[in-house]
Amino acid sequence: MAKPLALTSGEPAGIGPDITIKAWLRRDELKLPEFYLLGDRDYLSQRAKALGLAVPFADVRPEDAPAAFAEVLPVVATGHAATARPGHPDDSSAEAALASIRQAVADVASGRAAAVVTNPIAKSVLYRAGFRHPGHTEFLAELAASGGHTPQPVMMLWSPALAVVPVTIHLSLREAIAQLSSELIVTTARIVVADLKARFGLACPRLAISGLNPHAGEDGSLGVEDQTIVAPAVEILRGEGIEARGPLPADTMFHAAARNTYDCAICMYHDQALIPIKTLAFEDAVNVTLGLPFIRTSPDHGTAFDIAGTGRANPSSLIAALRLAARMAAAQPA
Amino acid sequence: MAKPLALTSGEPAGIGPDITIKAWLRRDELKLPEFYLLGDRDYLSQRAKALGLAVPFADVRPEDAPAAFAEVLPVVATGHAATARPGHPDDSSAEAALASIRQAVADVASGRAAAVVTNPIAKSVLYRAGFRHPGHTEFLAELAASGGHTPQPVMMLWSPALAVVPVTIHLSLREAIAQLSSELIVTTARIVVADLKARFGLACPRLAISGLNPHAGEDGSLGVEDQTIVAPAVEILRGEGIEARGPLPADTMFHAAARNTYDCAICMYHDQALIPIKTLAFEDAVNVTLGLPFIRTSPDHGTAFDIAGTGRANPSSLIAALRLAARMAAAQPA
Repeated sequence: MAKPLALTSGEPAGIGPDITIKAWLRRDELKLPEFYLLGDRDYLSQRAKALGLAVPFADVRPEDAPAAFAEVLPVVATGHAATARPGHPDDSSAEAALASIRQAVADVASGRAAAVVTNPIAKSVLYRAGFRHPGHTEFLAELAASGGHTPQPVMMLWSPALAVVPVTIHLSLREAIAQLSSELIVTTARIVVADLKARFGLACPRLAISGLNPHAGEDGSLGVEDQTIVAPAVEILRGEGIEARGPLPADTMFHAAARNTYDCAICMYHDQALIPIKTLAFEDAVNVTLGLPFIRTSPDHGTAFDIAGTGRANPSSLIAALRLAARMAAAQPA
Repeated sequence: MAKPLALTSGEPAGIGPDITIKAWLRRDELKLPEFYLLGDRDYLSQRAKALGLAVPFADVRPEDAPAAFAEVLPVVATGHAATARPGHPDDSSAEAALASIRQAVADVASGRAAAVVTNPIAKSVLYRAGFRHPGHTEFLAELAASGGHTPQPVMMLWSPALAVVPVTIHLSLREAIAQLSSELIVTTARIVVADLKARFGLACPRLAISGLNPHAGEDGSLGVEDQTIVAPAVEILRGEGIEARGPLPADTMFHAAARNTYDCAICMYHDQALIPIKTLAFEDAVNVTLGLPFIRTSPDHGTAFDIAGTGRANPSSLIAALRLAARMAAAQPA
């Protein structure tokens, strides 16, 4: 039996508990990989009741989760009980969420879990409690730091139809252009290639690298960055033996025939990457963090406070995240 | 019998003749609207021969084209014969292409044709011959000028799944941000609404207006333009009774459920508009020019010199352009 996946509870007042319960209820039908939730059993029981769902929970140790999974939703206690009502984060929220993340990372580091899958957190709630990291991913990178080295995390959005990596992420478009550099493209692409080999089992990953400007700048007549920033990066990568093509006109990169020619699209800014994948795979795109010493996937949505506890939350993206984490764990060299 | 569509030959050495012939051959199967090609019969006959296709051509007057269409491919002579071999534009190319466009506009202006459908031209070939317009569309706008007023053309990309209008088009991304203004968004949207009413038969067109920045700026933390430029434009449009929503996060605007909530997406720059439509409808998106005093559609691709005369050109986008032009002509108030 494979090692279980460590699933964090995320912001307790968000839809994390809802989609976890809904996913587990479909475990047989969908042949879901075994996971355990890091949280508080009483809190989860209350949520199941609020949803009108009969779910048996059991406190377990990580190593006992796989055997228990068929009969109960296995919970590994964090010792931090939340008190927040659905949709209404309170003073207990931040520590419950953070303890769950810390323990998941500890479990995967000690070899008790195969991968970390995270439910959504609410950054504003964490900030109010003194959280100092820009986001979930940077917090995970810090937890993964060792020997004074903090890994550079890279965000990939993955679906069966398309995988994309934005080189710049949560910046204004103006600032994204200003921060774009050949070095950033190269370091990002190297991490993508390393993880596509190690965790996706691809011997020779193929990258399609977009241009920044329309038509990839049309020989400089629509902007120079494709010639001065993107093309040199592609040359460096090719010099390292990486199968990289670009700068490619972004508008013709994402139709079905084009997608068949590469394993991952490296895009210059947020919307260039996220528009195509959310157009193609809105319900079941998965957020994957590359560059960490462990596997981490996450559903590609937020806490959705407005529907927490109502039964309307859709577990598709979490289910896709659980499946991809298990697939990545299986693809890893032992 | 409806008026015919006036189809230009475009750059003769490009794939315009190829896709015209291929489209006409499928006229029964696809129930294509009647059209005539503005060009030279001998030149077209040679191309059909090169393609190994038996096609009867006949010189006709526009008004006789509909009756002839079932039996022959109707050609209206422009008096400008091309001599260019497929893939190799020559000195005859520019004038042959331009004469065809001028005559199409004259035909639609005089009521002999229902709409103009244009095959692709090669701007570089035209520039060498002294052409001074930025492109096809601006040339059409000048031909449509009257009383000292040149209409402002607006490019829409249309497919059954999605219609998009980029507010800025062929500019570097940096320049597109610099040129974006509330006024440009408003004047563009007004033209879109007017034409969606007049030519698409929509009583109350619904516009989805994207933000410039990721997450539409996230309340200003990812860029101010969504608050300072886009939001005021949306307010002005709503004040005029136009059903406009925005600024919306661009990445979540284009999945199927979102698309059902609007008739046209107004986007801030080229790739934001063209990525989703080319991802969804690569083969059969149609380029529509709004804001002209006549209907004009065009296939959404170029001259493809590398495959002209080989038989490999795909007529899907031209076929979609012909159909949409006919549909728009039928929707027009008489």
